[in-house]
Amino acid sequence: MPVGTAGTVKAVSQDILEDLGAQIILGNTYHLYLRPGHELVRKLGGLHKFMSWERALLTDSGGFQVFSLSELRKVKEEGVSFRSHLDGTSHLFTPERSMEIQIALGADIVMAFDECTEHPAERERARTSMEMTLRWAKRSKDYFEAHKHECPWADRVIGRSGDRVIGKTEESVPAQPGAAAVHDSITKLTAPALFGIVQGGMYADLRRESAERTVEMDFPGYAIGGLSVGESRAKTMDMIAAVLEILPKDKPRYVMGVGYPEEIVQYAAMGVDMMDCVLPTRAARHGLLFTSEGRINIKNARYAQDQRPADPKCACRVCARYTRAYLRHLFVSAEPLAGVLNTVHNLAFYLDTMRSVRHAITLGDLSGILSGDVS
Amino acid sequence: MPVGTAGTVKAVSQDILEDLGAQIILGNTYHLYLRPGHELVRKLGGLHKFMSWERALLTDSGGFQVFSLSELRKVKEEGVSFRSHLDGTSHLFTPERSMEIQIALGADIVMAFDECTEHPAERERARTSMEMTLRWAKRSKDYFEAHKHECPWADRVIGRSGDRVIGKTEESVPAQPGAAAVHDSITKLTAPALFGIVQGGMYADLRRESAERTVEMDFPGYAIGGLSVGESRAKTMDMIAAVLEILPKDKPRYVMGVGYPEEIVQYAAMGVDMMDCVLPTRAARHGLLFTSEGRINIKNARYAQDQRPADPKCACRVCARYTRAYLRHLFVSAEPLAGVLNTVHNLAFYLDTMRSVRHAITLGDLSGILSGDVS
Repeated sequence: MPVGTAGTVKAVSQDILEDLGAQIILGNTYHLYLRPGHELVRKLGGLHKFMSWERALLTDSGGFQVFSLSELRKVKEEGVSFRSHLDGTSHLFTPERSMEIQIALGADIVMAFDECTEHPAERERARTSMEMTLRWAKRSKDYFEAHKHECPWADRVIGRSGDRVIGKTEESVPAQPGAAAVHDSITKLTAPALFGIVQGGMYADLRRESAERTVEMDFPGYAIGGLSVGESRAKTMDMIAAVLEILPKDKPRYVMGVGYPEEIVQYAAMGVDMMDCVLPTRAARHGLLFTSEGRINIKNARYAQDQRPADPKCACRVCARYTRAYLRHLFVSAEPLAGVLNTVHNLAFYLDTMRSVRHAITLGDLSGILSGDVS
Repeated sequence: MPVGTAGTVKAVSQDILEDLGAQIILGNTYHLYLRPGHELVRKLGGLHKFMSWERALLTDSGGFQVFSLSELRKVKEEGVSFRSHLDGTSHLFTPERSMEIQIALGADIVMAFDECTEHPAERERARTSMEMTLRWAKRSKDYFEAHKHECPWADRVIGRSGDRVIGKTEESVPAQPGAAAVHDSITKLTAPALFGIVQGGMYADLRRESAERTVEMDFPGYAIGGLSVGESRAKTMDMIAAVLEILPKDKPRYVMGVGYPEEIVQYAAMGVDMMDCVLPTRAARHGLLFTSEGRINIKNARYAQDQRPADPKCACRVCARYTRAYLRHLFVSAEPLAGVLNTVHNLAFYLDTMRSVRHAITLGDLSGILSGDVS
């Protein structure tokens, strides 16, 4: 899922996202709550209408941004009080408040309010944090179930967008026993879906316990949060593997905030269905391009006369038209088009990568993809 | 002509410029000379190929940017020495050097090297400056005629772009006696065209003399430079009117660096064929949108809940999809998409305005357009 922090995937217009085949994008509750404000978005018909995006939207809970961006953060049982990074004003996010905001924004998938455990964390601290996330998940679910039909498009979805569905679609069904049952979970949306989030720090047993107790609450999808916070990649994979053993295969399984192209291929092969990451968009704005030949830093002088496209194997609108020499010129000249074109290419690369993964899953052979041949 | 300073119309990709119907865009010799350098551009096949733009390109002479941007500028008979605004390095632009650079860049229309007379200027200073521009025009022409076939695409134009033509096309022929002769000037390009530039400060007689003596040199097109430098709009119009009496009607007549939508309509009605201005693009990046209802500053709080498009009468891709509320949110959030969408709309408004002008000229009635109804 491309990340559209403040109601826009930075530098890319919605028609291009559609052309790129983005099926779902992510919005950040923390950012949209602060600006333009969830009540404004609700009043204008919800985030879909506000940003003119008919395809699926997911909002995070706000917990991670409060953890990473805000000042003077204070976590209590009730929730998290913090000061805005924009203007220093005081705010309180609770599970109920996060649900209220996300329902007002009107995403298709709403995330339970969790605490992203800091890294490193001692075992007892990780358990305490995990226990609070579980209590917050319960409070999130209670509030969400009581209020989900207050979402701006609830029960009116057919009139607004007739084909937005939740659940695994045929293209993404894993080629493994039991997968056929997944089709039953495809239903027209009449209200958003709430996903639970697994925490537990870097302790596999806590992760498993968190997964088991979250699954007991019965969500329509599950996320694995609190990863990619500074741990080794081997540790990330261990945690994902431990949790995937517990999470039901017939529900979407979402790893939050990952990763590099080779990572997302690995995780998909392990059974992960959804991922989001700012990497393709943020790296693009810093001149880092992902290609079938590896990463290239477009500002490097070696590209000044390079007439090849960013990625000779890529068919995106940027690679079809512009040379590395031109992209380098735009970047070193700090031209706004640099961010636009770099982002479009990186998103194309990521979305193409996931298309290849889905194709390989359909064919039942992920070996080529896992060996690094994602072209 | 949208302005594409450094080989890019800021924030807008070339396919969108094509969709908007831009027939020609302008590149700045001063900027491209400093970065990425004209020799690099020549080596990579010229600016058309470098930026992937098959339609027409015009480059200015570099004189105006040296005048407005560089440091420690020193004008002598030979040319202008200056320091780069980027890194302080010393450079010298002469008429010959300007031609060499522009030929290397490979624009379709090359501008003679002139001195943009400062404003205000005493009569004698304006005459001295005008005389130098005339001498520089002669030197520009001599060098240009001897070297124009060194342009990257010269004599190979059919293979590169079969339909790029210079001269007035049917759509832009003024509905007045003698206009039919214009068709004869349509020829396939085999080398760039060099336009002369009229100067003369704010003195109508100097302007007329400059025009007469420039026309004697016989250029395929003529520009009026040194306007919109701080004088009143009435003075600008007086100067343009004085010069248009002299410039041949069957050659393109180009007023440089203007203007607001109502101005460009007026000048077109007076007989001006070409104009360029950074206003639609620069204003867009500052949140100023041109609409059929006047200018709007999109950051204004009054637009926070405005669900109308930027211009309800505009059919551009921005007005077709996004609300003022969304555009305001993007702008106040400093999102890169703000610059993109605002620029696309403003360019659409300008290009639509000129399309309306051409249509009115064809119909033989400019009265509706001049009264402000440019919808």
